[in-house]
Amino acid sequence: MENLKETLEKLFPLNDSEWNFISESLVERNVKPKEQLIKAEQTAPAIFLVKSGLLRVYHLLNGKEISTYFSCDEQFISTYTSFITQKPSYEILEAIEESIVYSISLKTLDQLYKMDSKFEKLGRYIAEQNYLCIANRTVIMQTKSAKDKYLDFIATNPKKIVQQVPQHQIASFLGIAPESLSRIRKEILIS
Amino acid sequence: MENLKETLEKLFPLNDSEWNFISESLVERNVKPKEQLIKAEQTAPAIFLVKSGLLRVYHLLNGKEISTYFSCDEQFISTYTSFITQKPSYEILEAIEESIVYSISLKTLDQLYKMDSKFEKLGRYIAEQNYLCIANRTVIMQTKSAKDKYLDFIATNPKKIVQQVPQHQIASFLGIAPESLSRIRKEILIS
Repeated sequence: MENLKETLEKLFPLNDSEWNFISESLVERNVKPKEQLIKAEQTAPAIFLVKSGLLRVYHLLNGKEISTYFSCDEQFISTYTSFITQKPSYEILEAIEESIVYSISLKTLDQLYKMDSKFEKLGRYIAEQNYLCIANRTVIMQTKSAKDKYLDFIATNPKKIVQQVPQHQIASFLGIAPESLSRIRKEILIS
Repeated sequence: MENLKETLEKLFPLNDSEWNFISESLVERNVKPKEQLIKAEQTAPAIFLVKSGLLRVYHLLNGKEISTYFSCDEQFISTYTSFITQKPSYEILEAIEESIVYSISLKTLDQLYKMDSKFEKLGRYIAEQNYLCIANRTVIMQTKSAKDKYLDFIATNPKKIVQQVPQHQIASFLGIAPESLSRIRKEILIS
């Protein structure tokens, strides 16, 4: 839990009673590879903070999996549209590798907002991070060459995501064919 | 200003000194049709709350204007990635028709956050609204037929945006050809 405290204290100072409330409200959960934390058509019950591991959000398009979000250590993840609107989601949140996450339920978050409105900063931070991810992905999908898309992906993601997310999932995230990504990776290694 | 007070009080209660600070910090500005509030390569200095009128955000792609956000009365608008990151933007914020906006500078927003963290709720609200807009647009672009895209646009936008935004701007927002949109509108009117 100490890591979590450090992560949160980058956003705002926490007194003992606030930290006690948070640490008692969070549910630690182990997730196996390919286990779904949020299924399709389910309303997102929580935001997850990754303690360790690697997870992704994806949806199905004409039977193909399109990855739209990756998260690893100390990052947040959820099927976020569903979490904000509290409506069922077409998106799926799934572990890529063995992971440990803290689950922060909507109820806990609402209680935090009421306890002290400084926790709204946490909500703002999560919303802004989600916005930046999807906005950046939309722009690079529209404007960059396949190679530049991948170079941008390398530059803006943690090493762990770049190295450990399967290539076909990165390819779907970038909207390029897996064979193109494979070729681009070889080119980059050679040059 | 009374409208603005009502809009903000839907989010949180305001005492007199807070309201005085806000109303003194905001800058009211008249904008002419096609006037650019934020230009390409400019770092977004502010978020704008629309008092009256109609505005849009767009960028250029291979010389074509791609609209990505529309706002009318009592809605917020900015080149939002640039506003969050404080980096120059490829996006342009422009008035579609004669408009009056309140400009909320980043400095004012930071002062509000420090004055009382309940104002973080405003930041969270703006971030969530921006996220929902782009997430919804991305999904309908990928998954729906041209007709369903337009029906979704009608269902989820204020009447003013549906009726007064020029058709070619709506077409670029939905990622469909202007001629297709024209045909779809006729079909809907007949059926």
